[in-house]
Amino acid sequence: MYKLVLIRHGQSQWNLDNRFSGWADVDLTEQGMAEAAEAGRLLKAEGYAFDIAHTSVLKRAVRTLWGVLDAMDQMWLPVVTDWRLNERHYGGLTGLNKAETAAKYGEDQVKVWRRSYDIPPPPLDRASNESVHDPRYANLDPSVIPDTECLKDTVDRVLPYWHDVLAPAVGSGQRVVVAAHGNSLRALVKYLDNISDEEIVELNIPNGVPLVYEFDANLKPIRHYYLGDADAIAAKMAAVANQGKAK
Amino acid sequence: MYKLVLIRHGQSQWNLDNRFSGWADVDLTEQGMAEAAEAGRLLKAEGYAFDIAHTSVLKRAVRTLWGVLDAMDQMWLPVVTDWRLNERHYGGLTGLNKAETAAKYGEDQVKVWRRSYDIPPPPLDRASNESVHDPRYANLDPSVIPDTECLKDTVDRVLPYWHDVLAPAVGSGQRVVVAAHGNSLRALVKYLDNISDEEIVELNIPNGVPLVYEFDANLKPIRHYYLGDADAIAAKMAAVANQGKAK
Repeated sequence: MYKLVLIRHGQSQWNLDNRFSGWADVDLTEQGMAEAAEAGRLLKAEGYAFDIAHTSVLKRAVRTLWGVLDAMDQMWLPVVTDWRLNERHYGGLTGLNKAETAAKYGEDQVKVWRRSYDIPPPPLDRASNESVHDPRYANLDPSVIPDTECLKDTVDRVLPYWHDVLAPAVGSGQRVVVAAHGNSLRALVKYLDNISDEEIVELNIPNGVPLVYEFDANLKPIRHYYLGDADAIAAKMAAVANQGKAK
Repeated sequence: MYKLVLIRHGQSQWNLDNRFSGWADVDLTEQGMAEAAEAGRLLKAEGYAFDIAHTSVLKRAVRTLWGVLDAMDQMWLPVVTDWRLNERHYGGLTGLNKAETAAKYGEDQVKVWRRSYDIPPPPLDRASNESVHDPRYANLDPSVIPDTECLKDTVDRVLPYWHDVLAPAVGSGQRVVVAAHGNSLRALVKYLDNISDEEIVELNIPNGVPLVYEFDANLKPIRHYYLGDADAIAAKMAAVANQGKAK
């Protein structure tokens, strides 16, 4: 049986502040680091071990991975980083307080931008898009760097990473852990579980909780489940769903 | 011009306790973590940036690298880990307090074991060599896993990593940082600077200080230098030289 473990990063400072993060390189809070360590302890206690780790080029995901590997005593794993695992790019909403945005544009419009499958938020001007000049994207064709993304755009860049990198590794028997983001993981989960465009926008992935996928020999998902206390996980999912509501 | 930056891990618990570490997976002290962060701040202040990071499979080197990358705001770099960058394997001396060993065998014998080029310490029994069963070495032919090493043995495994991995990367223009250990770095430095068997055993590489090598187009070293305060570096080198003396 083949397995893949997905982990959304722990709480970030902008999760706490209720701001759209997207590609802004926001760090974890103390709670976020504790969530990462707890995820690692849980994985170790359940007998998990990995051969390779994949994460985005954003530090909230990298630091979550580091916390997991540290707690598992697997700091020696190779770490592959790739922009295709980044959070969805929130365009002109990046950095805005979600409650303020909701108060300004209305809660429904915020939900459209956050949760519509194919309607992107207003794009950044190219000139004000800092990612274009960020060394971590220097090897990319600039046309690949988004100014905004709808979830469909995120799916379109995450799936090649699944097909080209993750699936071959899992299929070859490697035990793979992926530390990434709410929407890059949602993109992957949409594909794996064949979730509709309408349903995927309502699916909430909690921060810092290991999500295990089991596959058959054709890499068809058999089942998936979160590790940890069910009530705590449900509370975290509800917290994610409530982000973006006006306060 | 081509550059390579080498960093010996910061102070470990067994550096502090004056014990032979070798392949034992000893962690950094608080001071060691502070040294790593300071090395990263120094590199950033001097305008350094990297494209890829290499380290051993021992956590004192990995955590040093993490501290450096964090301070440089380069946590997004890919991290390659390889056992060939590990510390020299100290065989039966592993875990022994160096002062006690010196008191028991004599300071000269300790220096022979630590600093002879081709005389290894007493080997571990294979049955008591934990590395044979350690998952981080599971993909190696067991015959490759040492029961002890002289510095020459360490050179013999480090140099293929230089020739096969590091040199091609540096020569292709990649900016490479290597976080490793006193003896794996000594092995590399011996080759790069064509240092004799006799001289290399007296060369002390301080903990947590960036060591920069500059190369010509044929990867011939032009010069090398430590970054940071010269007096502080000299004091660290003297501290390394004094390890293993009876107290």
